[in-house]
Amino acid sequence: MKIVMIGAGNVATNIAKTLANIGETPVQIWSRTLASAETLANAVGTCATSDWNSVVKDADVYIVAVKDDAMLNVIDLLCAHCKHGVFVHTAGTMSMSMFTGKAEHYGVLYPMQTFSKQKEVDFRTVPCFVEASDKHTLDIIMELARLLSDNVRELAESERKWLHIAAVFSCNFANVCNAMAAQILERHGLSFDVMLPLLDETVAKLHRLHPREAQTGPASRGDVGVVSKHLAMLEDNKELSEVYSVLSNYILKNRE
Amino acid sequence: MKIVMIGAGNVATNIAKTLANIGETPVQIWSRTLASAETLANAVGTCATSDWNSVVKDADVYIVAVKDDAMLNVIDLLCAHCKHGVFVHTAGTMSMSMFTGKAEHYGVLYPMQTFSKQKEVDFRTVPCFVEASDKHTLDIIMELARLLSDNVRELAESERKWLHIAAVFSCNFANVCNAMAAQILERHGLSFDVMLPLLDETVAKLHRLHPREAQTGPASRGDVGVVSKHLAMLEDNKELSEVYSVLSNYILKNRE
Repeated sequence: MKIVMIGAGNVATNIAKTLANIGETPVQIWSRTLASAETLANAVGTCATSDWNSVVKDADVYIVAVKDDAMLNVIDLLCAHCKHGVFVHTAGTMSMSMFTGKAEHYGVLYPMQTFSKQKEVDFRTVPCFVEASDKHTLDIIMELARLLSDNVRELAESERKWLHIAAVFSCNFANVCNAMAAQILERHGLSFDVMLPLLDETVAKLHRLHPREAQTGPASRGDVGVVSKHLAMLEDNKELSEVYSVLSNYILKNRE
Repeated sequence: MKIVMIGAGNVATNIAKTLANIGETPVQIWSRTLASAETLANAVGTCATSDWNSVVKDADVYIVAVKDDAMLNVIDLLCAHCKHGVFVHTAGTMSMSMFTGKAEHYGVLYPMQTFSKQKEVDFRTVPCFVEASDKHTLDIIMELARLLSDNVRELAESERKWLHIAAVFSCNFANVCNAMAAQILERHGLSFDVMLPLLDETVAKLHRLHPREAQTGPASRGDVGVVSKHLAMLEDNKELSEVYSVLSNYILKNRE
């Protein structure tokens, strides 16, 4: 496949590197910032551009992996310059109708994973959710998705958007709870590394128990004495005590 | 060691089973509810009681693993009936001074892990934090801790309590974010299992990146358009939209 990557952020970087690893290196990386495009292009051994006029016109697939706030504008510009091929975006919450009237063949390939430039993921295990404008385009996006992952399925936007919001809770919000733990530990001269066995077990449990069954801790025991003590300890930090209070109340109310 | 286990909950169950596995089965399990004591006693092959008068008087160590709300009362009753041996509790946030004036030798053995009865943990990797009333007692509690785990260190209450509150964020609050994700998915006919590769990677990243560096998602990209869309999707659920809003604001304010 002749693939052009539009974007050079976390998602674009992980997809481009995975494609390069399987011999399907994108022919070009576009990014608004040339330096970003070049960093990724150099990493995978291909060309970089930040100029819409230079974007390859005869690609089979254009993968649009830019942040959602920028996507509408980027799609407008891309489709003004390139008319042929299949256009795909990677966003969980954005509709594929963003391409309607601008491209003929289009769709979505949403890889549900947390991507950082500093750590490549094993893409074969990443659940990928595909949607397309028509059957022929679906076949092409499915083929692309199966090059990347062993875990591919078709899913309409009406469900994909709930998957994305659930992923924000499971990943982004769980991670920020760890950032808060790190903030507390570092303030008291303790290293975050000490938490790693606890983090590993917290997730290992969820392979066998439903999160409601796996819940432990003061609030889930109804141990309001400890909850009050902890809130008093966090008294000088309004942000953390608000989070502690909101999440403990949810746990208290939803106890098994 | 001649060990009596006071309690039959998640922590008591995991410690008693680990002790049984290494041939140090507690000689007795006490619980307020006889049926609970019997369930655990049967699982490890020992005796059960709910009667303070029947508690073995000549144990080397009494391990008090009951919920924090009940602990003061349980310690009062235990120490009224048993005078000799070393008394240890397992709570992160409770002071060892709860034993002062009631026992001669006492301390704390705080295993920082999430324990559920339905899933035994590999105790050898559990970080255990020990504190004691005197040097001799410290040696005994250290010996007990090292029977259980390869990851043992001495830590004063003034630091242990911060470790415990950090563990609430890292484990209990991260887990409840997953419970919320499950609630969202199940309401839309999707299974929580689909999240497992995302959960695994979320934690795998934290073995290599600081939680602040590992943060991804709409709020960490400053993608306020998606944040607003998600809040609109959660409009009919006050609890979840409050959590979404509080955590996203923290992420937005603390972006790298």
